[in-house]
Amino acid sequence: MATKEKQEEMTRRQFLTTVGKVGGSAAVFSLMGTMGLLAPETLKAAEFVPPGQSDLKLSGRGGKKIIILGAGLAGMTAAYELGLAGYDCTILEAKSFAGGRCWTIRKGTSVSEIGSGRQTARFDSGMYFNVGPMRIPQFHVTMEYCRKFGIAVEPFNNVNESGFYYNENAGALSNRRVPKRAAKADVRGYTAEMLAKAVNQNLLDLPLTSEEKNKLVDYLRAEGDLSPDLFYKGSSRGGYKEEPGGALDGGVRRDPFDLKSIIDSGFGRYFSNEYSYDQQMMMFHPVGGMDKISEAFVKRVGNRIRYRAEVKAIRQSGEGVKVLYSSPDTGVQKEITGDYCICTIPLSVLKNIPADFSPEMSKAIASTNYASAGKIGLQFKRRFWEEDDHIYGGSSLTNMDITQIFYPPNDYFSKKGILLGYYAYGGNADKIANLSYIERERLALSQGGKIHPQYAKEFEASFSIDWKKTKYQEGGWASYSSDDRKSFYPALCKPDNRIYLAGEHLSYMTGWQSGAIESARIVVKDIHTRVMKA
Amino acid sequence: MATKEKQEEMTRRQFLTTVGKVGGSAAVFSLMGTMGLLAPETLKAAEFVPPGQSDLKLSGRGGKKIIILGAGLAGMTAAYELGLAGYDCTILEAKSFAGGRCWTIRKGTSVSEIGSGRQTARFDSGMYFNVGPMRIPQFHVTMEYCRKFGIAVEPFNNVNESGFYYNENAGALSNRRVPKRAAKADVRGYTAEMLAKAVNQNLLDLPLTSEEKNKLVDYLRAEGDLSPDLFYKGSSRGGYKEEPGGALDGGVRRDPFDLKSIIDSGFGRYFSNEYSYDQQMMMFHPVGGMDKISEAFVKRVGNRIRYRAEVKAIRQSGEGVKVLYSSPDTGVQKEITGDYCICTIPLSVLKNIPADFSPEMSKAIASTNYASAGKIGLQFKRRFWEEDDHIYGGSSLTNMDITQIFYPPNDYFSKKGILLGYYAYGGNADKIANLSYIERERLALSQGGKIHPQYAKEFEASFSIDWKKTKYQEGGWASYSSDDRKSFYPALCKPDNRIYLAGEHLSYMTGWQSGAIESARIVVKDIHTRVMKA
Repeated sequence: MATKEKQEEMTRRQFLTTVGKVGGSAAVFSLMGTMGLLAPETLKAAEFVPPGQSDLKLSGRGGKKIIILGAGLAGMTAAYELGLAGYDCTILEAKSFAGGRCWTIRKGTSVSEIGSGRQTARFDSGMYFNVGPMRIPQFHVTMEYCRKFGIAVEPFNNVNESGFYYNENAGALSNRRVPKRAAKADVRGYTAEMLAKAVNQNLLDLPLTSEEKNKLVDYLRAEGDLSPDLFYKGSSRGGYKEEPGGALDGGVRRDPFDLKSIIDSGFGRYFSNEYSYDQQMMMFHPVGGMDKISEAFVKRVGNRIRYRAEVKAIRQSGEGVKVLYSSPDTGVQKEITGDYCICTIPLSVLKNIPADFSPEMSKAIASTNYASAGKIGLQFKRRFWEEDDHIYGGSSLTNMDITQIFYPPNDYFSKKGILLGYYAYGGNADKIANLSYIERERLALSQGGKIHPQYAKEFEASFSIDWKKTKYQEGGWASYSSDDRKSFYPALCKPDNRIYLAGEHLSYMTGWQSGAIESARIVVKDIHTRVMKA
Repeated sequence: MATKEKQEEMTRRQFLTTVGKVGGSAAVFSLMGTMGLLAPETLKAAEFVPPGQSDLKLSGRGGKKIIILGAGLAGMTAAYELGLAGYDCTILEAKSFAGGRCWTIRKGTSVSEIGSGRQTARFDSGMYFNVGPMRIPQFHVTMEYCRKFGIAVEPFNNVNESGFYYNENAGALSNRRVPKRAAKADVRGYTAEMLAKAVNQNLLDLPLTSEEKNKLVDYLRAEGDLSPDLFYKGSSRGGYKEEPGGALDGGVRRDPFDLKSIIDSGFGRYFSNEYSYDQQMMMFHPVGGMDKISEAFVKRVGNRIRYRAEVKAIRQSGEGVKVLYSSPDTGVQKEITGDYCICTIPLSVLKNIPADFSPEMSKAIASTNYASAGKIGLQFKRRFWEEDDHIYGGSSLTNMDITQIFYPPNDYFSKKGILLGYYAYGGNADKIANLSYIERERLALSQGGKIHPQYAKEFEASFSIDWKKTKYQEGGWASYSSDDRKSFYPALCKPDNRIYLAGEHLSYMTGWQSGAIESARIVVKDIHTRVMKA
């Protein structure tokens, strides 16, 4: 075992985590952590020591009242973890349901976007689509809560070689759907050929022995499926014109695209989407809808939630916190007081709520940008992507406004299905946001129909969301530049007297449920430490 | 639409398929096929027109007796498709159960390998592992039978960036488990850097405009996660030493391995395993075990199967076929006669059965090689790969004898799990085949334990199979060189008078269940055509 190397890699946090643990499985963790054999994320999870019930009882510091603003995943995580220790938590939630962006659209879901009329989902019973987060990397803490709460998960097919690339204004391959496997085989083939020949002919100044160069060429031959003399002449990896089959049916391999066409197509730029750390396989989602997660939290902390409680002002003094809120239905104003406040309201909303924040905090809140993001679900009466194209989950990518289509990674073989007809962000999302619900539907159908002509015949119903136009959310997720992280972001992370901010926007995993959970756990630890010290 | 280009790609088979169809969904297929919008595999499926019940009745050619040898997927597909049309099929199966290599090991599974004692699986109830085929590419005809028979499928995680590479005698990274994501990030990074610089400095003689060269460099920058000046300096794609998290926890990226080490490691050679056409994502497997497929067939053709019927001789004349068989339990000899015979017995077994084959056929049967393949299932009392390492399905690859470890792609979060402790072929399989059951277990535990030290503490029970030592199978799958395909293979595909061979070995998808099914469907069509012509 190269134990020495691994020990050198051990970080302060790993060390602290390791020595902070005692007994049982913790002792195993400790031993294994020392050996460097635990995943960093496991160590991260082990690092969170939730407040214990005995801490407060023994210390006589029980009964601390915590006001939590927002029943999204951050707010409910905080209520759950603090509640286990005996803190008295109350969650104020403006909507009539919990979960925040962890939201699954089903038959009858009804919502009015800011400045628009009402839209009601006419999907069939039992059908759903996740309009907020839809996938969970296997190493995110979200998976640990799924495990703990007994939420069944199934793979989210974030990679599928049978999906298509489709680009407009991209040379000879414009306006043509090309299977991902075909584009990958050709791009990898041609580039491997170029590099293998260059290495072989010693055109590059590489710090390698000739044996190492041979190994590199061997790798490139395998990587690009090159001929022995290092040419890319097409590959079965890219698929077939005629599939191989039984008896004498050897199949006919597709012809590769020529080098110019495949470079001009721009398809290669899509490959690395699948490489990024939080998009790599395997990914998961709860069986039956992402809202199984919020439901599981509600089962545990639902009795602490006051719904339809729109926060009007956040006040604090040396003694405590007072929050004024009112029902958007009755207008009746109420107030609640507590020892501390955990505010998970998105900063795009919070910046317009009067609050006793320091000027530094107020400025940081106002400075935070939110990403534009929008999705549409399209119900089809036949799963033609499975039946005709043999695409089971995964996506097709395009440079049209719709950006991407996702095929449902659930209920394979069933009769109907809801496709994610677009998932747009940035400029594309802004453009789509300005359309009416029906115009969005038309856009999704006309552009998506170029990739799947079956759209026209099989379409049944749509439901679209723009996150910036969604009340109490007003944005997809917090979006920081690296300058933002240095300038105003640290101010958001510091408690402002008795008020703590939490949420995906208080994390380096913005846009992920894990960001909300990790952020909440840090605030829980901070508050508990402060209470115990007091 | 680039319809013209696609039409040019249309093949004879696609054309024939298209025009051979009439009415209903067939008409849609026809239209869409003309437009070039159906996947080749869909066209392949559409091409199979099963014999209709009315064909035989109307023609007065009913009651033809078909003797099928072997109740694997080929034999049962033939019985199912012919049975629908009213053929009188009888399947002789030497074992006491159907499915052939489509076999799932559960508690109580008991078997004696050729030349060895009895082995009985001591797994817990409800636990299983697929000792034969374990995954289905989404485009294989096997999926169509799952759909038709109502067999629920779930993804088989054939790609998982959290799995490990572990090589011995491979330079500085020897004896060290390295996450796949880390190896891929580094190899892709360094090679993209080499090529991008070479293109940028015009070191290569490429038939590209300078605009196209820029596009190529753009692609390489994205592909390798290179700096603006085209250096690979590590990438978050490779993972973290400290995971990013909440508040100020920005994470600490891992340091890349140096170029020499990562080349010497040989890890790059593993990447392309995931690229091959039939190993690409998405892949699937039946919920609850691969034998759900054989069960579904048995439900439909089980009343045609005679179990414990070991074929002793295959005789034929101008009038019909006669098969002599006996029970290995009682030794009582029986015979059955029929009009035609479909023989799906593996050629490794068939070559030792007296049969009225032409010299050409006999020689071809004797010439066919079979692949060595072996697997072991290891039951652990804790799913440490999920709990400690956040690996949900997928594999780790190694140059040790065990070749690879697969993590169960099912029942995530449950208490226990069965790992595929090795899946070896070729020389490694031969080496392991010679070990006793307990020696195989020790080998799997000691080598696998180098990657997962938790093995020692958590292991409970094992069950291993070597396919060459498995009675009535005697091999993993038929293994043809391209010379074999030209020389003797065509003889296997021709009916020998009244006897037709079928099975994965009669296909260009050897080792796959789809090969068995496609092969059987061809024979079904051939026999039906012959009967109708007679």
